[in-house]
Amino acid sequence: MSPRLRPHIARLHAYVPGEQIHAQGIIKLNTNENPYRPSPRVMRALRRALDSSLRLYPEPLSDTLRNQAAVTYDVDAENVLAGNGSDELLSILTRCLIGKGDRVAYPVPTYTLYDTLIEIQEGESLTVDYPADFSLPESLASANAALIFLCNPNSPSGTLLSRGAIERLAAAFTGVLVVDEAYIDFADDADASAIPLIRKFPNLVVLRSFSKSFSLAGMRIGLAFGAAEMIAGLMKVKDSYNLNRLSAVAATAALQDPVWMKRNVGRIQRARRQLTRRLTKLGFYVPLSQANFVLAQRRGRDLRELYEHLKKRGILVRYFDVPGLRDALRITVGTPPQVQALAREIETAGSAS
Amino acid sequence: MSPRLRPHIARLHAYVPGEQIHAQGIIKLNTNENPYRPSPRVMRALRRALDSSLRLYPEPLSDTLRNQAAVTYDVDAENVLAGNGSDELLSILTRCLIGKGDRVAYPVPTYTLYDTLIEIQEGESLTVDYPADFSLPESLASANAALIFLCNPNSPSGTLLSRGAIERLAAAFTGVLVVDEAYIDFADDADASAIPLIRKFPNLVVLRSFSKSFSLAGMRIGLAFGAAEMIAGLMKVKDSYNLNRLSAVAATAALQDPVWMKRNVGRIQRARRQLTRRLTKLGFYVPLSQANFVLAQRRGRDLRELYEHLKKRGILVRYFDVPGLRDALRITVGTPPQVQALAREIETAGSAS
Repeated sequence: MSPRLRPHIARLHAYVPGEQIHAQGIIKLNTNENPYRPSPRVMRALRRALDSSLRLYPEPLSDTLRNQAAVTYDVDAENVLAGNGSDELLSILTRCLIGKGDRVAYPVPTYTLYDTLIEIQEGESLTVDYPADFSLPESLASANAALIFLCNPNSPSGTLLSRGAIERLAAAFTGVLVVDEAYIDFADDADASAIPLIRKFPNLVVLRSFSKSFSLAGMRIGLAFGAAEMIAGLMKVKDSYNLNRLSAVAATAALQDPVWMKRNVGRIQRARRQLTRRLTKLGFYVPLSQANFVLAQRRGRDLRELYEHLKKRGILVRYFDVPGLRDALRITVGTPPQVQALAREIETAGSAS
Repeated sequence: MSPRLRPHIARLHAYVPGEQIHAQGIIKLNTNENPYRPSPRVMRALRRALDSSLRLYPEPLSDTLRNQAAVTYDVDAENVLAGNGSDELLSILTRCLIGKGDRVAYPVPTYTLYDTLIEIQEGESLTVDYPADFSLPESLASANAALIFLCNPNSPSGTLLSRGAIERLAAAFTGVLVVDEAYIDFADDADASAIPLIRKFPNLVVLRSFSKSFSLAGMRIGLAFGAAEMIAGLMKVKDSYNLNRLSAVAATAALQDPVWMKRNVGRIQRARRQLTRRLTKLGFYVPLSQANFVLAQRRGRDLRELYEHLKKRGILVRYFDVPGLRDALRITVGTPPQVQALAREIETAGSAS
């Protein structure tokens, strides 16, 4: 690394996203993409937006999208910040809230990007192990942290904390609580979101992504919800025009077609139950998932070989080469035929070994 | 502001971009957008890309775009980093290179976002006044800074430093030199770019934007060029999928149609000469511009009134309400009819006052 980089950046191990292999015939169950296409309403809006206006800057604050989000999520526009994916919003949050030595607490295992973002800010990560049932670790609120990250439903476990549990944590915690709800549309409980709590807790920020339930991972769109004062602070750090014209158009149209999203979510919920049953029968422990993926665990057995076998057979799943997760695979819930193909391959691998 | 924000963020005055008013009939000459539409090749590529693949994540490193940029700019792909606008690249650079108290030097007046980004990192800005002829201030190299920002052609002056001047600075300076070439395609000298110098100077980073010459401000695309080691370091800090699918497609197609870009640049260069002549005749001092805007100065006279008069008459130009710039307006070079409309309005305002 260049000696001119700040030393902690030179030392940094960057976050490694799942493999992006899009070869023909690959069954891609490793990065939690939606197997169904985006709403036709989104595609129509995009086609209409393809004109010479692309030469002009987008709205600096993505106001059209914010206004639509205010209607959809029953908040005010000033409670909404639009981002270039929720990753950008996470990065803005750490830049605004975390300085050298500031503590950030979060339960693990979870989204490992949190750790990378904290390192970039020279903050201090305090991780608390989830108990076996993936309930909220008691010690989190008293961790004396400036910030707590809570992925809900959690990745890679797929488990969901209730809104009541989030509310108790927000009330007990004096720092900023960020609830990352990238997967919440897949929860069976339609009232699980913490968004309604932003009215009550000025220290709460809730993140949403359009990459999963809205089938728009390629467009990079995220939303942050919080008290107006908090959102105004975060806005100062975002790039002037952080969301391009087409992504803003796609997101606005996606919110205007909740029926499409919910129909796909319903299909994925059904396939999730099917996949969970199959994997359980095959001897895996599978925590009850409320996301568009499941964690398939064989306690104490390294599943790298199974991951590699599946990859050879054209099925990509996610293997995390880190302590405590090597005995598990995170598998995106695909279409029913994909679920069956996966289960068959695992079955074959199992009987062969 | 929320008491939970880091104190220097709570105090921060955010960068204020030019007004984005897109009402019918407005002549918008305030944010240096290109008056001509993007290449038909870009539009075709975008239409083709509008399919169900939007449900999938983009290439993490935008490799297709990087490979095309390598061909276009005669570098290797490992010398290229693609960003969500060059603003994102500037932000990545400060996050990688600047910590609390680190000094960043840059000549002023220039792009005021530099100052905001340095403040976010708690760095220390050292500004050096440009001399009247906007040549490179001698003291810059010896400023003992970790980083120098150099906007070339400079905004708001429009003036250009030669590649030789950049080369001497890169050789004399021990920190990282960032040359922001957002406007360089508009320079009369086709060999003005510092990109070829990245082979020689591992401490040089050159930024390009697709917002100006390629007519794609709405798509938010920027490129950074530098030594492979430097680019690899910057990549660690970028978001995993920082460029969406459609922007990557648009940028790649734009680079494949240099003829379209150059034809529009030629038109703008001619209109720039016409605008400069008209403004000079009207009594303004106009530094020789090599960008797609000119700075029209009336030394010692506050031009806020003229700015407001033009706005009332439906012509938006840029007035910077900061010391040293209140006697000037930055005017984007539009189409010939727009240039004429502007000159007529200024003439009328002048004879009325």
